[in-house]
Amino acid sequence: MNSRQIVLASRPKGIPVHENFRFESKDLEKLKENEVLLKAEYISVDPYMRGRMNDVKSYAPSFEVDQPIAGGVVAKVIESKSNSFTNGDIVFGMLPWATYSIEQSENLRKVDPSLAPPSYYLGILGMPGLTAYFGIMDIGKPKTGETVVISGAAGAVGIVAGQIAKIQGAYVVGIAGSDKKCNMLKDQFGFDETVNYKTSKSVRKSIAEACPKGADVYFDNVGGEITNAVVLNLNFHARFVLCGQISVYNSTEIPVGPVILPRLLTRSVMLQGFIVSNYSNRFNEGLGNLAKWVHEGSLKYKETIVTGFDKLPDAFLGLFSGENYGKMLVSIE
Amino acid sequence: MNSRQIVLASRPKGIPVHENFRFESKDLEKLKENEVLLKAEYISVDPYMRGRMNDVKSYAPSFEVDQPIAGGVVAKVIESKSNSFTNGDIVFGMLPWATYSIEQSENLRKVDPSLAPPSYYLGILGMPGLTAYFGIMDIGKPKTGETVVISGAAGAVGIVAGQIAKIQGAYVVGIAGSDKKCNMLKDQFGFDETVNYKTSKSVRKSIAEACPKGADVYFDNVGGEITNAVVLNLNFHARFVLCGQISVYNSTEIPVGPVILPRLLTRSVMLQGFIVSNYSNRFNEGLGNLAKWVHEGSLKYKETIVTGFDKLPDAFLGLFSGENYGKMLVSIE
Repeated sequence: MNSRQIVLASRPKGIPVHENFRFESKDLEKLKENEVLLKAEYISVDPYMRGRMNDVKSYAPSFEVDQPIAGGVVAKVIESKSNSFTNGDIVFGMLPWATYSIEQSENLRKVDPSLAPPSYYLGILGMPGLTAYFGIMDIGKPKTGETVVISGAAGAVGIVAGQIAKIQGAYVVGIAGSDKKCNMLKDQFGFDETVNYKTSKSVRKSIAEACPKGADVYFDNVGGEITNAVVLNLNFHARFVLCGQISVYNSTEIPVGPVILPRLLTRSVMLQGFIVSNYSNRFNEGLGNLAKWVHEGSLKYKETIVTGFDKLPDAFLGLFSGENYGKMLVSIE
Repeated sequence: MNSRQIVLASRPKGIPVHENFRFESKDLEKLKENEVLLKAEYISVDPYMRGRMNDVKSYAPSFEVDQPIAGGVVAKVIESKSNSFTNGDIVFGMLPWATYSIEQSENLRKVDPSLAPPSYYLGILGMPGLTAYFGIMDIGKPKTGETVVISGAAGAVGIVAGQIAKIQGAYVVGIAGSDKKCNMLKDQFGFDETVNYKTSKSVRKSIAEACPKGADVYFDNVGGEITNAVVLNLNFHARFVLCGQISVYNSTEIPVGPVILPRLLTRSVMLQGFIVSNYSNRFNEGLGNLAKWVHEGSLKYKETIVTGFDKLPDAFLGLFSGENYGKMLVSIE
């Protein structure tokens, strides 16, 4: 059995380029006991994966050079030597970027395609959805009528976080990088106001205008100048949900910027950095609520699906130029 | 009755200078019903007062130009038209920098000089002590064996915070600006390790050496480069007690420095900015525990007492050059 895979050819310096990826062909071995053979259906590309391309200790282990990139994958079982899976089962796993792969059954979770499209398990019913859920419900905790500001609002996490904040009764302001994204957030996802940070002359003032009562919760996916502008609009006792910092993931040196601590001090702000795995013992609660809201129609979803295994590097690179509306993922033929 | 007072002559630009203060003489009016006449005994100088000299909205209102500076004062009642106070009572209040003043009785709190020296009510049994108490007990929450790092450790808040962390069973590392201060912290106050940030070649490395298990709690009184160095040593799920930022209080522009959010994110750090008044409904609990520890001898105290009303500006300015060991205050003849 032959598979195509994508390995890390070299570690990127700054913004990744195509030369950092290499396509390879690989012969798969025969299945051993308790293993399954998988055909990839959807492969996820996520901003946090950029950190894994560096040779720096972080919460997720580094990818090895000459070894496959790996991440969230929804796949179909096409052969099984496990009692837990039979042919045709749809599963989620942290798997290599490969058209076919062999995996131990204990590393896979069966997903139910009758409850939601399989791709949803990489997004709204997967890590991005859970990230949004715990960030809003456990850290931001918006009260009815409070103002929640979300950066990277049109991304996989932001688009869900904003809607969950709406479900909690908050006034929700999304920051995004195009009028098209801003219109989508208001028209399709119920955001109350938006700020296009690329066309605003002063992001700080635009946020102030969009938040007449100031910001009580800030859900940060981006960092950098946008975050500095939001911080100047935080209310007393605001909660800062530190979820992502995509603006600096490609930095080659520690970025420099205005020091925000004095402002966090005088406003008695609570900031919590988090990664979704901190909440692994509550994933069932999160997935249960997310699925309920999706079924009720109170939580809508958006995917940008790129077609073709060959397009994986492009899709990943597109995350850093904001090409995705909602969750970016790749559908494998 | 004639009083001397110190008014804000002009708002400082950067580091305050003597010209920002003006000594005046003032005739006090006759006491009205419910008022008391007070003679100042001890006047507190505190870093947060620098912020009140600016014309910027913050948690404490700005001082007015040509009006008296005001802050914590311990005073003796020398005439009373209030049923709550009699001559000779020792009281605490937020009072003008003046040798004598008249105050409404409801703005004063009687203190018991038989329990502790009156000056203690400006420090360990006052705002600095309560700040240390709630910062450690409510935000930092060190567990037995965890490492707590304290910047500005030899100051009024730091010296108490470190000892409370010790009482909680933590390993406590203090950062201060001289060997004399560092030795004092270890020899007199039970700190486990210290870092002299002025002589260290790399504060980051010195902290790493002083914290072989990394830092679980950071109690920050100073901000700036010291804080950047501590952040690089924070453990997963560390708590960042954001209490003071004295290194930037004299800044004329928003200071610029390395962006620390990515590190707070990957380490899942919780940061809480706070001001002691957030805990006003728990002051009795705090003061009760502080007094108990002082009486038991588990909490020691240190004051730098400058003598003479004329020395108030000097004492205040000395805070920013680190002249104080423990609490800085001025004794009035």
